This record gives sequence, structure tokens and C-alpha cells, in this order.
Amino acid sequence: MATKRDDRKHVAVVVYPGLTMLELIGTISALDGLGTKTGFRTVTVGERREPLESDTPMRFIPQSTYDETPHPFAVLVPGSGGLRAITAMGDEKLLAYVRAAAEGAELVASVGSGALILAAAGLLAGRRATTHWAYRRVLENLGATYVQRRWVEDDRFITAGGASGGIDMALHLVGNDTGRRSARQVQLWIEYDPQPPFGAIDRQREDADNALASTLAGRHAEVERALAHRPDLLAAVEKALSPAPPNGIRL
Amino acid sequence: MATKRDDRKHVAVVVYPGLTMLELIGTISALDGLGTKTGFRTVTVGERREPLESDTPMRFIPQSTYDETPHPFAVLVPGSGGLRAITAMGDEKLLAYVRAAAEGAELVASVGSGALILAAAGLLAGRRATTHWAYRRVLENLGATYVQRRWVEDDRFITAGGASGGIDMALHLVGNDTGRRSARQVQLWIEYDPQPPFGAIDRQREDADNALASTLAGRHAEVERALAHRPDLLAAVEKALSPAPPNGIRL
Repeated sequence: MATKRDDRKHVAVVVYPGLTMLELIGTISALDGLGTKTGFRTVTVGERREPLESDTPMRFIPQSTYDETPHPFAVLVPGSGGLRAITAMGDEKLLAYVRAAAEGAELVASVGSGALILAAAGLLAGRRATTHWAYRRVLENLGATYVQRRWVEDDRFITAGGASGGIDMALHLVGNDTGRRSARQVQLWIEYDPQPPFGAIDRQREDADNALASTLAGRHAEVERALAHRPDLLAAVEKALSPAPPNGIRL
Repeated sequence: MATKRDDRKHVAVVVYPGLTMLELIGTISALDGLGTKTGFRTVTVGERREPLESDTPMRFIPQSTYDETPHPFAVLVPGSGGLRAITAMGDEKLLAYVRAAAEGAELVASVGSGALILAAAGLLAGRRATTHWAYRRVLENLGATYVQRRWVEDDRFITAGGASGGIDMALHLVGNDTGRRSARQVQLWIEYDPQPPFGAIDRQREDADNALASTLAGRHAEVERALAHRPDLLAAVEKALSPAPPNGIRL
């Protein structure tokens, strides 16, 4: 069952300032298999090999740079929250790397709001995709069809919901690659046996539509500055921030 | 619902070389609440403020040192795998900090094999507790009563199973502290809505009894070296590594 280290498929995990550590760590822990061995090997890839802020108080250092990892087997973009996701959408160097690496990759993946980065890079237009619930409308404004599922596959593109969505997707990918037994070994080893004490998420449409607006309240100038050079992306975000129409009717 | 930053209860998250990042990040993400605000504020505490290895290729830097965080509201110890957990059990400075901080703490918690560190510090003798399944027998050999549950409370001691067990436990603690509604907001914000693609873990007794032995195979000299100064702990580990008796009968 073990795969030789050199044979493992490289997954370039694209990292940037302020990303959601749980989405990064959950996904790479399941893909790499840790105590077990999977067919994948993740490598975090950033603009520079310098400490980056995250959504936790922890800083971390990318293992490689864009230049060092030009042709990965797969590209995976974890998400971030609030203004961080918007800023990442406006980072042209990040988008250029994602676009170039995705071109030759057999698999292009995201977790949470990472889907917005794929969409901003022009990779999800006309595709079915998912994202963290708070970013649903932005994703749709960028030309994708939002599907409310833990992960959504469309050709070689696979997008997952937030946090645990990345773990679920990673187990699915390991299962596809080396079989269900291997995926279950990974799951057992990382002891991913969730039992949320207050039950499953009872997602409310209204919460979802207002969440992004409330996290970005009072930061309009920063949103505009982050996307000033990309009026198309700015329009997609601003449209999502405008009040949702009543009765679930979409504009 | 918001709690002022200064009013938040400090949780000293004890970090050490090689710990399991998913257990660290999952638990602190849920305790801190990130997009929401909870009544807790986590602070990673290590021996020195220097980069530490983890079970992933990522290194991280503790936010504070043992000396700087002597009297936290709560102490929380995440787990690690294989030899890392054994080495941490033999780290007398780590144990001394955990013991001293636990003495005045209102809450003493662990995730995964972090329970072995609490037990090695003498804090779980005679208590009901849980741990990552691979360490069940070691925990029992250290005098605790193992309970197979996502988390187990015994007085002010709360121990969780591996990985997602830390998130489940953290949501439970947030629910106890500021109410069910607050815990559900955290869960929604971190989008913890797990749907493992291959179902729940079907834990097998035999796997559990052999897993630790197989990860430590050929590393006996290192285990002995790590615990040479603590024959009591070494005996507890070695007893767990000996072949399990058939038919689930315990020695």
C-alpha cells in the first residue's frame, strides 16, 4: 500500500497572508496521510519563503516559492476570511501563479473562499463549484454556479466548502487515488470522527447573505483599494455586499 | 454577545516539538471563534519562543514561554504521534509547566495523545479520560480509566479524542461558557459541517492495539532513551507495546 516518496504526486498548496489555518492544515493532513502514506505529497507555495500571518496568532513559512514549483500535479488553494479573501483576489502575482500552475495540472482544487481565488484567476467561469457559505454570492457574481455541497467536482476542478469540507474532499481524493481502504486508514489515523455537540449546521439563507457584508462593514475603502486595478472583481464583491432581495429571489 | 478582549479567559495551549497541527489548529480555531468572538483567548506556550517542528512540514513559533504564562485560566495540551508523544512524556520541563499551570487552572484539557502528557504529569490518576485510540493502553497503564468517547469530563479535567475530537470538545466548552447559540455561531463560521465520504470510523480493537507498536517498530532504543529517567513511564509504554492478548482480554 505504501507509495515511494519520489513517486508521490506533488500538490502545490498556494499560501498567502491571513489564510485560514484550519483549512490549510486539515486538508494537507488528510492528503499527506501523516501516520499512513498516501499517493500525494503537499508542498506549501508562497511568493517568498518568509513568515506569513494566518487567521490564528500563528505565523508560518512557505516551503517553496512560485518559481520553485512551476509544474505541480495538482494546485490547491485554501481560503481566508473577510478582507483577506478579497485582498487575495486582487493579488495579481498570486493569480498569475495559480493560472500558470493550473494550466498543466491534472487537478485544481480549493477549500472555502479559495474558490474565489480560482474564480478571480478565470478558472471557474461556467463551472459548478462550492465555497464557504459566506462567499456564495461573490462566487456566483464571478460566473460560477454555486452548489451547496461539501465538495463539488466539475471536470478537473474540485472545490470544497469551508474547514471540514477540505478534509472531506481530501479523503475523497485519496480514496480515488489509492482506494477506499487507504482513505479509511488516513481517516482512522487522523481520527477524523466528528460529532459536533450541537448537531449539524442549520445554515440560514439570511445569515449567509449578510455575513460577508457584516464582516466587511466599515472597510469599504480597503475593499476598493484591494481591487482597484480589477473593476470586474470589485463589482462582483460589491454586488454581493448589497442587501439581499427578500424571499430568496436573486438579482 | 461580544466579550471584551481583556475579559476573555486565557487558555494556555502547551506546544512542543512534533505536535499534531490539526489538533492544535482545530481546537484553537473553535475556542477563539475567529470570525465570531468567544469568551476564550488561546495563547500557545512553549519552552522558548523559537520555531518548532510539527507533524506537517510547517514550523511554527510559540507566542509565549512557560515563564510568561504562569497562571492561565485553562491549560490545554494537544497531542502528537509515535515517538513524539513518548518524547513529550519524558520532557520534565514540559511536565513541570503543565503541573504548575494546572494547579491553579479552572480547566485542564487535552486533545489526542495530549492526555498522556497530563497523565505523565500525574494529573489523571484514577480519573476517567480519553485519548487518540492508538494510545488507549498507555493511558490505562498510567492509571486513568479509558473511555471511548469524543470527549470525557471528570471534575475540572476534560480530555478529547484525536483531531476532530478537539473541535467537538472546544464547541462544547464554548457552549458551556457563553451558550449554545454562541457555539453554533462558531461552528457556522468555521463551517464545521463534517461529512466524511467513507462514513464514520469503524474502529477495530486489533488495529488499535497494534498501531502504536507498529509506528514505534525498530525505535525501541529511542523510546528507552526518551524515558530513561522515568522508569515508571517507560514501563507503561512498554506494557502497551507488548502483544495484545487474544479475545480482547487485557493483561
